[in-house]
Amino acid sequence: MPELKLPFLGHGGDYNPDQWRDRPDILEEDVRLMKLAGCNLMSVGIFAWSALEPREGEYDFGWLGDVLDRLHAAGISVFLATPSGARPAWMSRRYPEVLRVRPDGQRNLHGERHNHCFTSPVYRAFVGRINRALVERFGHHPAVVGWHLSNEYGGECHCALCQQAFRAWLKARYGTLEALNRAWWTGFWSKTYSDWEELHSPSPVGETSIHGLNLAWRRFVTHQTADFMRAEAAPIREVTPELPVTTNLMEIFGGLDYFEFCRDLDFASFDSYPRWGGPDGEWTALCAAFNYDWMRTLKQRPFALMESTPSQVNWHDVCKLKKPGMHLLSSLQAVAHGADTVQYFQWRKSRGAAEKFHGAVVDHVGHEHTRTFREVQSVSGALAKLDDVRGAMPEVRAALLFDTQNRWALEDCQGPRRDMGYLETVLEHYRALRRHGVALDVIDETCDFERYHLVAAPMLYMLRPGVAERLEAFVRRGGTLVCSCRTGCVDEDDLCFLGDFPGPLRQTLGLWVEETDALYDGEANGIRMNDGRSYTCRALCDRIHPETAETLGVYTADFYAGEPCVTRNGLGEGAAYYIATRPDAEFLDDFYTGIADRAGLECPLRGLPVGVGAMARGGLLFVMNFTGRAVRASLPEGVDVLAGRRTGGETELPVNGVLAIRPGR
Amino acid sequence: MPELKLPFLGHGGDYNPDQWRDRPDILEEDVRLMKLAGCNLMSVGIFAWSALEPREGEYDFGWLGDVLDRLHAAGISVFLATPSGARPAWMSRRYPEVLRVRPDGQRNLHGERHNHCFTSPVYRAFVGRINRALVERFGHHPAVVGWHLSNEYGGECHCALCQQAFRAWLKARYGTLEALNRAWWTGFWSKTYSDWEELHSPSPVGETSIHGLNLAWRRFVTHQTADFMRAEAAPIREVTPELPVTTNLMEIFGGLDYFEFCRDLDFASFDSYPRWGGPDGEWTALCAAFNYDWMRTLKQRPFALMESTPSQVNWHDVCKLKKPGMHLLSSLQAVAHGADTVQYFQWRKSRGAAEKFHGAVVDHVGHEHTRTFREVQSVSGALAKLDDVRGAMPEVRAALLFDTQNRWALEDCQGPRRDMGYLETVLEHYRALRRHGVALDVIDETCDFERYHLVAAPMLYMLRPGVAERLEAFVRRGGTLVCSCRTGCVDEDDLCFLGDFPGPLRQTLGLWVEETDALYDGEANGIRMNDGRSYTCRALCDRIHPETAETLGVYTADFYAGEPCVTRNGLGEGAAYYIATRPDAEFLDDFYTGIADRAGLECPLRGLPVGVGAMARGGLLFVMNFTGRAVRASLPEGVDVLAGRRTGGETELPVNGVLAIRPGR
Amino acid sequence: MPELKLPFLGHGGDYNPDQWRDRPDILEEDVRLMKLAGCNLMSVGIFAWSALEPREGEYDFGWLGDVLDRLHAAGISVFLATPSGARPAWMSRRYPEVLRVRPDGQRNLHGERHNHCFTSPVYRAFVGRINRALVERFGHHPAVVGWHLSNEYGGECHCALCQQAFRAWLKARYGTLEALNRAWWTGFWSKTYSDWEELHSPSPVGETSIHGLNLAWRRFVTHQTADFMRAEAAPIREVTPELPVTTNLMEIFGGLDYFEFCRDLDFASFDSYPRWGGPDGEWTALCAAFNYDWMRTLKQRPFALMESTPSQVNWHDVCKLKKPGMHLLSSLQAVAHGADTVQYFQWRKSRGAAEKFHGAVVDHVGHEHTRTFREVQSVSGALAKLDDVRGAMPEVRAALLFDTQNRWALEDCQGPRRDMGYLETVLEHYRALRRHGVALDVIDETCDFERYHLVAAPMLYMLRPGVAERLEAFVRRGGTLVCSCRTGCVDEDDLCFLGDFPGPLRQTLGLWVEETDALYDGEANGIRMNDGRSYTCRALCDRIHPETAETLGVYTADFYAGEPCVTRNGLGEGAAYYIATRPDAEFLDDFYTGIADRAGLECPLRGLPVGVGAMARGGLLFVMNFTGRAVRASLPEGVDVLAGRRTGGETELPVNGVLAIRPGR
Repeated sequence: MPELKLPFLGHGGDYNPDQWRDRPDILEEDVRLMKLAGCNLMSVGIFAWSALEPREGEYDFGWLGDVLDRLHAAGISVFLATPSGARPAWMSRRYPEVLRVRPDGQRNLHGERHNHCFTSPVYRAFVGRINRALVERFGHHPAVVGWHLSNEYGGECHCALCQQAFRAWLKARYGTLEALNRAWWTGFWSKTYSDWEELHSPSPVGETSIHGLNLAWRRFVTHQTADFMRAEAAPIREVTPELPVTTNLMEIFGGLDYFEFCRDLDFASFDSYPRWGGPDGEWTALCAAFNYDWMRTLKQRPFALMESTPSQVNWHDVCKLKKPGMHLLSSLQAVAHGADTVQYFQWRKSRGAAEKFHGAVVDHVGHEHTRTFREVQSVSGALAKLDDVRGAMPEVRAALLFDTQNRWALEDCQGPRRDMGYLETVLEHYRALRRHGVALDVIDETCDFERYHLVAAPMLYMLRPGVAERLEAFVRRGGTLVCSCRTGCVDEDDLCFLGDFPGPLRQTLGLWVEETDALYDGEANGIRMNDGRSYTCRALCDRIHPETAETLGVYTADFYAGEPCVTRNGLGEGAAYYIATRPDAEFLDDFYTGIADRAGLECPLRGLPVGVGAMARGGLLFVMNFTGRAVRASLPEGVDVLAGRRTGGETELPVNGVLAIRPGR
Repeated sequence: MPELKLPFLGHGGDYNPDQWRDRPDILEEDVRLMKLAGCNLMSVGIFAWSALEPREGEYDFGWLGDVLDRLHAAGISVFLATPSGARPAWMSRRYPEVLRVRPDGQRNLHGERHNHCFTSPVYRAFVGRINRALVERFGHHPAVVGWHLSNEYGGECHCALCQQAFRAWLKARYGTLEALNRAWWTGFWSKTYSDWEELHSPSPVGETSIHGLNLAWRRFVTHQTADFMRAEAAPIREVTPELPVTTNLMEIFGGLDYFEFCRDLDFASFDSYPRWGGPDGEWTALCAAFNYDWMRTLKQRPFALMESTPSQVNWHDVCKLKKPGMHLLSSLQAVAHGADTVQYFQWRKSRGAAEKFHGAVVDHVGHEHTRTFREVQSVSGALAKLDDVRGAMPEVRAALLFDTQNRWALEDCQGPRRDMGYLETVLEHYRALRRHGVALDVIDETCDFERYHLVAAPMLYMLRPGVAERLEAFVRRGGTLVCSCRTGCVDEDDLCFLGDFPGPLRQTLGLWVEETDALYDGEANGIRMNDGRSYTCRALCDRIHPETAETLGVYTADFYAGEPCVTRNGLGEGAAYYIATRPDAEFLDDFYTGIADRAGLECPLRGLPVGVGAMARGGLLFVMNFTGRAVRASLPEGVDVLAGRRTGGETELPVNGVLAIRPGR
Repeated sequence: MPELKLPFLGHGGDYNPDQWRDRPDILEEDVRLMKLAGCNLMSVGIFAWSALEPREGEYDFGWLGDVLDRLHAAGISVFLATPSGARPAWMSRRYPEVLRVRPDGQRNLHGERHNHCFTSPVYRAFVGRINRALVERFGHHPAVVGWHLSNEYGGECHCALCQQAFRAWLKARYGTLEALNRAWWTGFWSKTYSDWEELHSPSPVGETSIHGLNLAWRRFVTHQTADFMRAEAAPIREVTPELPVTTNLMEIFGGLDYFEFCRDLDFASFDSYPRWGGPDGEWTALCAAFNYDWMRTLKQRPFALMESTPSQVNWHDVCKLKKPGMHLLSSLQAVAHGADTVQYFQWRKSRGAAEKFHGAVVDHVGHEHTRTFREVQSVSGALAKLDDVRGAMPEVRAALLFDTQNRWALEDCQGPRRDMGYLETVLEHYRALRRHGVALDVIDETCDFERYHLVAAPMLYMLRPGVAERLEAFVRRGGTLVCSCRTGCVDEDDLCFLGDFPGPLRQTLGLWVEETDALYDGEANGIRMNDGRSYTCRALCDRIHPETAETLGVYTADFYAGEPCVTRNGLGEGAAYYIATRPDAEFLDDFYTGIADRAGLECPLRGLPVGVGAMARGGLLFVMNFTGRAVRASLPEGVDVLAGRRTGGETELPVNGVLAIRPGR
């Protein structure tokens, strides 16, 4: 698998010269401005199909060759994109089968992007042909350093071709209808299938109540999308096997199982659009960091920050400007967590249509005399000083388990609460674990647990085959496992474990769960720990029966006041904790602080003010102030390579300040 | 009409052995647990069609025979269900006409339950065949004590067959297009029909503005559903005319006119899912009681509590556990109000699909060592002591008129307020009337008023033919009638009475209504009674002109301050009251307290704390504490047959406490 | 173009005798009541198609002739309506093409009103035939004084015929696909059109992201609706060229560009339904006045108040009664602002269907002894004293630019805020300008600016060709121009101006805009003026660079604190102001007060309490108390022709009081 190997930290963005082909003056000016901005890496050709193949079979590649030549001449590298993210109108008109069908069975009209069937042989043929032509023409162009497949894969199609493919996938997975009926518990509401042809994707005007079907459909969507992606990558890999291939992934995206989907990518790349300037800067920064850690973990490699905005976006309800310094801070946050590039959507604002007000390095005014342009220049300045981190991976001893398939199952779950809060719960654990700068991987159930000292796996509702066994082995060999309410309820087909929860983790956690209470929004219970400390909790409260586990804390209210709420089960060399509810932030802070040392975690910088992040990578310790105000913090001795100043002791961090400290005296 | 005659108060629930056919060990264990739980009545076969007829025409009844034999051997009786609530996938695939068509004319895909056309001859034929086969095979099985038709009938279909049936029903009702056009006021917006074929069900993409059409369609839906039900019951009644037939009805359900629909049932049965544990326990209990009184009134017979949950449901936004004692309390509430059974959905939690987390007697853990199981046992213990109430009807002298067709008309009404608050208003009157334990029937316009001393009929907007005349006769003969704002506006086709409101009740109430003001949510007016007491009122304020009525109270604000608001019209031996607005709870309490004695109502227990319910049935006085805390109340002398303790004087009722007092010294 | 010339101020309303043809007694009674109410002008025949043509080709005009004769005999004039607002069921059934198709391509069922395709040749033929028959039969009837076309034109159809017409319209507008692709920036997301047949109306299941397409479609809808209207007016104008033609327009309606649409009307007429009695009476009155000024400006002629309610409506969420006096006050408000009629929907409440509870002069009770009837009589009394204003236009020196096409563009705009608040911003400027009774026209970009001393043009985001040049010329010749944030961003196809904003107004305003910050709801910045006064602002904050403009005020917060926020650019004889944000009401009050004198505006009555409106027309100064309470105001010397009382000095205005003062000693 080829790696992304750049001779520099990449800096650039999506470049759409196809929109400006009648303005050669602007295309020239672009290159001057790129050099002025310190850009060295552009993504070219995304959504350019109607420019590349204006009529069926007629390719017009000349303009693209000119662009690549011009960029190369200026020393700028290129991720070359395949155009499959949107198809030309002539194709939709002549071959309507390329358009998606909605869950109610109606086919979409032409329009928008991402509106194509991933199964359609016609669409696959068109994509294959143009991708082959592109790679043959440009695959060995010296500017090209990697491939950017399509754009933000996602969505689904319910056409007859997809139904056929779904049935074939189901046959391969379940073998017999009997096995499928058993796995999906179709005896319920008379849903037993008697013929494969009866199977159909879930639909709001058809079937929605078979959770096994819903899960299977989501898995199939990942499978089929990945299959399409492989097909579109095939000619590219054939002609340029040395070039790494990626596609851009999205924040907290649940439409695809990204671990499964990314197996065929050479490196991950990511589109990051945090709501900077909002009411809770710490939380915004935390969510961004969580995504970056996830991206880095997906391939256990540095990733590309493929898209971000140098100023504001155009699609939030309220699109705030990035305040001075925030652009540098937010860009280096990505680098600290594992990005080897800082790229933007978009280089130059388009003149018309839906994204014309999305932030860009170059505004409609067309010149460099803008605040945004200067902020972009500050990033190139910083990146030049951070080459040490390029290609480096942080040292990680702890993992947070965030499993997309578990998320699907929890979101589909009926009872005991409509909103189970899986994502928020995972982020709450992330915040507590990151409080002292602990480096975290964001893994899923398929990852290797043995790399870590600690695995936090909140709300691990669905246990796929072998996961419980692997977690038990991890604990027995000395690992620390943290679980929480609604753990171990169902198997991979959403079938409940009999013998009650936490199912196959019962021995590992040393308890069983009798029932789970649900609390209204705004309602709370309390936790009292053995040492007397008290906390609140909410949303869900398991009533548990410890068997081998010891009780660390109890509920303080309702009819189960005094019953166990937090437990620890020593097992082999390790220990498994159970938090039977959704506790408040103070609890999680104290809890993880209490076990961090015992679990052998590295805390690069203890005692940072809330909202100041720390992250070590490539021998540098990044310290980042997301609090929105100047704060004082105690820093290690060393040199901030950005400012070229010595650090050490109590120091004032300015608003949006960022340091990259090389420790040492 | 055969009655439900059980030799005990029934206790049990929905039992789905069809989901566990590959687990004979569990089927055996079920019987052991049923006996341990004190269950004596199971509902079997609901949604079992795909198990009973796995392929078209191939019946597999063996497993069901085994189940019935096994239950019978254990002394457990059975309500045997027809499977029409959901059809097998093979049927939808081969005969798409069995699936429903939505109001926009699009046919549903296969899936869910309740997704069949009630008109389709194909569906009726399938149902008829399997029902005949079931009754012939099992109708005389000694375990079977009654029939449970389908499940929670509801919904509607807009297919071409239903349009034809609708037109035929319209022809039968109106005779000529001229009559129909006149009744529906189709001169409005050029809507006059010139051919029967132009008639079509209401649709959001077609016609919604003819209220006469909307009403007719809802009546047709009740008619056609009842017609389907009669058709599916026909073979059953032919073969087992001695067995009573029911179907399970739903809380405050407005999709069918239950009085009309129930004419063909032998007894009513009910699915009760109050939100116990919510913020207002008194109101929750009140709504439950209202439903029970409605169910008992529907057939003027004891009803079956066909479904309830022994722990939590899975479909509320927040599904709270029942707190200790609540299960006994809530179960006996149903018995106090007229239930002869306490049954659950469901006996055992299913392993998969949408209802796997719905509460059940037996959880996934599979054994009896759970709090829920013990709570269920407490119910069998109590029922054994309450056999006196079996078959008994409470003595009732007051009725609350809650008319589903009036509800349809009010909900469809445009002006003077989008939310007319009919249901809430009815419940407010119910609360005030029940404050002293007065037993109430919940009747509709077709019921016999002469049984009662008092009829409260708030917001009786639509007066079907003869209703005004029967109410007037009721008053003249000594009855007390209570009406409120928006009374007597339209006839049965939603055509306004000319000569103004309250239309044909003008003489009975002794006033006319000039106009009706609407108040914003949060806005209020006031009422000042002749005796000086003051109250608030809201939502709607009729400006009235008393003719023969005397004024009891006036408005206190706005330009109609000082104008009459509460009146009394003596007529013959009786009196008719008019409350021209929606008053607060204090008003209604004082108002009904003031007229209760005069109207000759029985108040079994005055002065109970708010939230403590009292209900007399079968010589026992049930006292039920829904306040969520321990309270003191003054109880009559007698014996609480549940605890076997004497009662009398000031007594503490524990949280969720319930007593069944046989009065006497 | 014939004018509306009535020998009196019109008073009357929509009259639907077609609904009462079987009640000749009521038709007789109507005339008696009309005379009693002082009504002299009725609108007849709206939605009467099924009465006029009960079967295809069979006209039944006799009843209408009788009605016209009867009205004429009573001295009552008539606006005769064409019936095209709703078609008979027989037509929809036999010619489904007359029904509309939704944006997803599905055709509606028959039903409702306004459910017809404006393109369908079949529908146009039917309309043409019946209109010709109507005008030939009744065009010269002495009662008929004008034509009321259809009813509240609006909506759109996406059928194949409309797609064809849309393509033809696009060809005519853009000439070539190249020009269209350039204007719409279709290079974005591969949207380039390669064949005219690929063009399709915007659809939520197709294309929504091409703002140029969205704008073109809305323009086409106006074009096609106007084309239909011209076609339906053609036979009428041919036979009765002397009679003026109108159609009734709607409040703040954005579905059509009314300036464009009204070019073919002889006079404007308006349906006015303010929410009187709501929490903010001043704002309600202000919005009503704004609409009236808009209507008057559309044709620069007096308009007809074609519909209003004499009591309550039936379609607000909460339909409040008009309090005593409000009906007179609100009716005369329309007259003060330019109405020559006061008409109602409706004369008599219908008995059935959706509008039976909409207020009317005659209620279901059928007699005149109602408050509403007396309030209506008070209007006839007042109108008789106000004949001076008939046909008169107010003297107007200021204009507020509210451009519907600009509204479309702003509402479609993605970024920097979902809710741009255009309408609210315009109304805020209106309120400040009206504070001292300044008479205002509500113009659009196509109007002649030279008539005015001041043009306020807030948020003029889209500048159609020549507008910037005309505004610059207006300023150079001495005009005062006021602009605000988001001005001059795009051209008429929503293509951004390069060289940055405010585009071609850069020189006029003397500044350029670098970027625009968006503020959350509830978030604020501040303005500090050079003279020290401070205000708040919100929603949007342009960061601007004055070039020739002088700074009048600066921001007080965020990173752009101290930067210019309010500027003035002297240019030629005039000046152009820029308010770079959305300021609070206090700012706008002070701002416009400060420039009113300088701009040479007439302030008929300074220092009125907030909520008291003043408006001069026809030599009379109307003073109107919308505060909901009695207030004191200083009035000019003169005579209130309504009360026949002298005025002058500090005077108490009663609740809902209105005066019409003829100044003089």
